[in-house]
Parts: sequence; C-alpha cells; structure tokens
Amino acid sequence: MTTFEVEVRIWLKPSVFDPQGHAAEQALHVQGYDEASDLRIGKYMRLTVKAATEAAAKARIEEMCERVLTNPVMETYAYDMKELVAE
Amino acid sequence: MTTFEVEVRIWLKPSVFDPQGHAAEQALHVQGYDEASDLRIGKYMRLTVKAATEAAAKARIEEMCERVLTNPVMETYAYDMKELVAE
Repeated sequence: MTTFEVEVRIWLKPSVFDPQGHAAEQALHVQGYDEASDLRIGKYMRLTVKAATEAAAKARIEEMCERVLTNPVMETYAYDMKELVAE
Repeated sequence: MTTFEVEVRIWLKPSVFDPQGHAAEQALHVQGYDEASDLRIGKYMRLTVKAATEAAAKARIEEMCERVLTNPVMETYAYDMKELVAE
C-alpha cells in the first residue's frame, strides 16, 4: 500500500453568490486595500489516502469529493496528490 | 499597473483542533472511505490584486493576509500568484 498526501481546493461555481468572499473583500477595502477585487472564498482540505496504486487513489479521491466532500451542484473542485510513503 | 491572480491557502496550525475536519473525516468513514485519514479543513481564497511590480504585489498580499484575511495566532497561509494582464 502507498500513502498519498492529497490537497483539495473547493470553490463555489462562478454563478453562485459568495457572501463570505464579498464580506472579506469589503473588509480589505475598509482597511485600505483597494487594489484587491474579485475575492471568492472556498475550502482547502488536506488528507492522506492509502491505495495500492496512484490510479486507484485518484479514483477513490474523486469519489470522496463527488459523494461526500463537495456539493457538485454549487461547487467545483481540483486536487493535487503526492506519494508519501511506499510500504 | 499589472493585475495578478492570487490563490491563498489558509489552514489551522497543527496544534489547533479542527472539529470541521474531524467531522468530515467521520463522514468519509461512515460512507466506507476508511483509507482516508488526517483530514483538515482550511480556507481557499482567490482574488485579483493590481500593483506596479510583482514585488509590490507580494508585499501587499502578505500584509492583507496577515492583517485581514487570516488569524496569525491560529492559522498559517501560503499563496501563489500569476500575472494576468499588463496594462
């Protein structure tokens, strides 16, 4: 079994209003950071996954993302993974 | 002025308990994804920043992260940026 370190980035689809991002952008402007715009806030997840092969890990990670970790109607995701330990 | 597209990843320091990550990991296990572990949930932000130079953009982004976007006591961050449009 190989252990993979996985990073998942999840963000709201462009058509979905993001009140948290809007509020953070306003806070930046109030503090004088007027050069910041188009701020959107999503989620960043890190986890480890054990699998026999890289292809098997990818298939399981995509299933986890689509079935448990994200809301596919409102969110989009991308992930990176790297091998941690070969046992 | 140059426009930079910035991605900021924010996560809780390892010593800080992450109940949201713990709950998501439990949900994965309940759904049969026992190979997942060490799940931690942070924030993922995208924004655009205008600046005269890349060095100026970096300085301002780091200030925004440290003063407004993150809690430096509990969180750590990293960012990537790329040039979007040179005007």
